[in-house]
Amino acid sequence: MMLRFLVLFLTLASCRESYKMAKAEYNYTVDSARASLVRQEDTIIFGLIERARFPLNSPTYNQSYTSIPQFRGTLLDFLVRHTEAIQAKAGRYINPEENPFFPENLPPSVVPRYPFSQFLHPAAAMININNAIWKLYFDELLPMFVASGDDGNYAQTAATDLSLLQAISRRIHYGKFVGEAKFRESPQGYEPLIRAKIHPNFLYSRKLCTNVAHATVIEDKGALMKLLTYESVEEMVVKRVKKKAMVFGQEVSLDRDVKGITYKVDPSVVSLLYQKWLIPLTKNVEVEYLLNRLD
Amino acid sequence: MMLRFLVLFLTLASCRESYKMAKAEYNYTVDSARASLVRQEDTIIFGLIERARFPLNSPTYNQSYTSIPQFRGTLLDFLVRHTEAIQAKAGRYINPEENPFFPENLPPSVVPRYPFSQFLHPAAAMININNAIWKLYFDELLPMFVASGDDGNYAQTAATDLSLLQAISRRIHYGKFVGEAKFRESPQGYEPLIRAKIHPNFLYSRKLCTNVAHATVIEDKGALMKLLTYESVEEMVVKRVKKKAMVFGQEVSLDRDVKGITYKVDPSVVSLLYQKWLIPLTKNVEVEYLLNRLD
Repeated sequence: MMLRFLVLFLTLASCRESYKMAKAEYNYTVDSARASLVRQEDTIIFGLIERARFPLNSPTYNQSYTSIPQFRGTLLDFLVRHTEAIQAKAGRYINPEENPFFPENLPPSVVPRYPFSQFLHPAAAMININNAIWKLYFDELLPMFVASGDDGNYAQTAATDLSLLQAISRRIHYGKFVGEAKFRESPQGYEPLIRAKIHPNFLYSRKLCTNVAHATVIEDKGALMKLLTYESVEEMVVKRVKKKAMVFGQEVSLDRDVKGITYKVDPSVVSLLYQKWLIPLTKNVEVEYLLNRLD
Repeated sequence: MMLRFLVLFLTLASCRESYKMAKAEYNYTVDSARASLVRQEDTIIFGLIERARFPLNSPTYNQSYTSIPQFRGTLLDFLVRHTEAIQAKAGRYINPEENPFFPENLPPSVVPRYPFSQFLHPAAAMININNAIWKLYFDELLPMFVASGDDGNYAQTAATDLSLLQAISRRIHYGKFVGEAKFRESPQGYEPLIRAKIHPNFLYSRKLCTNVAHATVIEDKGALMKLLTYESVEEMVVKRVKKKAMVFGQEVSLDRDVKGITYKVDPSVVSLLYQKWLIPLTKNVEVEYLLNRLD
């Protein structure tokens, strides 16, 4: 009798798991992935606006400023490494949509394992180009949208940096899900190109991918890149994020709308960020994912 | 010669410090404090919208869900306590505008001390009602603006909870700066009331203040509370945050503005949050601050 109950319980539990898995898998289509990217735009723009509350605060990024016992690195390194370790324990990186900036020596999750969809192809799921994103963020992006100056809020600055970096990283690595969804919708289109792995003009490699200076060079080259590029969609994204930066970054007043005068982050910086880095890097991840899709 | 250089260097450094302090003090006036509160509205509304990306995710708040080695509490407790410890080391709580949720046993800052303005009166500067805010957030606020459900993103949920809690806490404790600025602008108005410390109808005490159920009871009572209340300003705040929730929480599309249809967080929840809790609790902090202003 007890055994029968146990079997019934396990069967029901297993059904529930399968249902959850199936439900989660169902969410990833080219359309649903695009919808997620649209929602992620809001998060990224909020993140830019919140980081711009603080001036550059260069001591956050200057190794000579802090001498933290038993730690070598900047204040930002310190905050990101330790915050990622806590979030790893709390299970953040169990979700395949999340990718840590310092994956080395991360502690394991201590929470029960949630059955996230295993939608991605295992051999291609581990791509992580956060090194390139990190470098891009400090070398290119920060100087474009934060004011110079120092208000002493280094910890708060680092915390907003981390939130924004996580949002940008999630967007770019979402290329894996976009790639898989496109592949599943048209395997006959992608398979020959993946098998050939011959892209005469295609400069892409994992090494280049972690080198931001070259990351945009690859742009449109290679048959695979051509197949997964929808120029009209990209143009729409660039226009939409500019509009969003105007809407979310305006001064909202009861008297009248102070539109077109000052924005918390320059809308053309946001469109440039997407055009020059976020869209090309997402496609780089898509291509790298697909090149490993049949392994 | 070396000594002369050293003296010159120290004098210059000291001048620079005094300049910074003076400059920082200058920023706190009733008007500048109000301007800061207006900017903080954006941060709070972004925080609400970002938390609403996730459903309730109740395991985040359920102690029986996690069994973390050497830790007793919920996953959120774990994430907040440890993240606050890291941010404390990085110097967050050196800024008198910041107040931790778990001030017990926080590690000291390891970064060089930035000369934040010592604008507040020392005997009154330590007020911390984060206990009340914490309880309010989970008992009252969360159920009002997040959907039911569970998507497994507990670490991400807890991280957005923390950002939002920090923004709400900063707003409410900003009452100390508002109180001090009002006092400095009109000491002759406030001193007699503070000295009297007699408020027949005034139910306020530190104990009540940490009890959210009673926190709104005190509302308008007491002469001090009356003196620092500007009803027209409060009404404007409530209207403005509703408008901001509409602007920041709308779906921005290139085709047309999908206004008035769906918002990521119900704008009337945002105005209620301000009307029922944020404004009264900020004033509670102002009153408590002023009651200790002449100690």
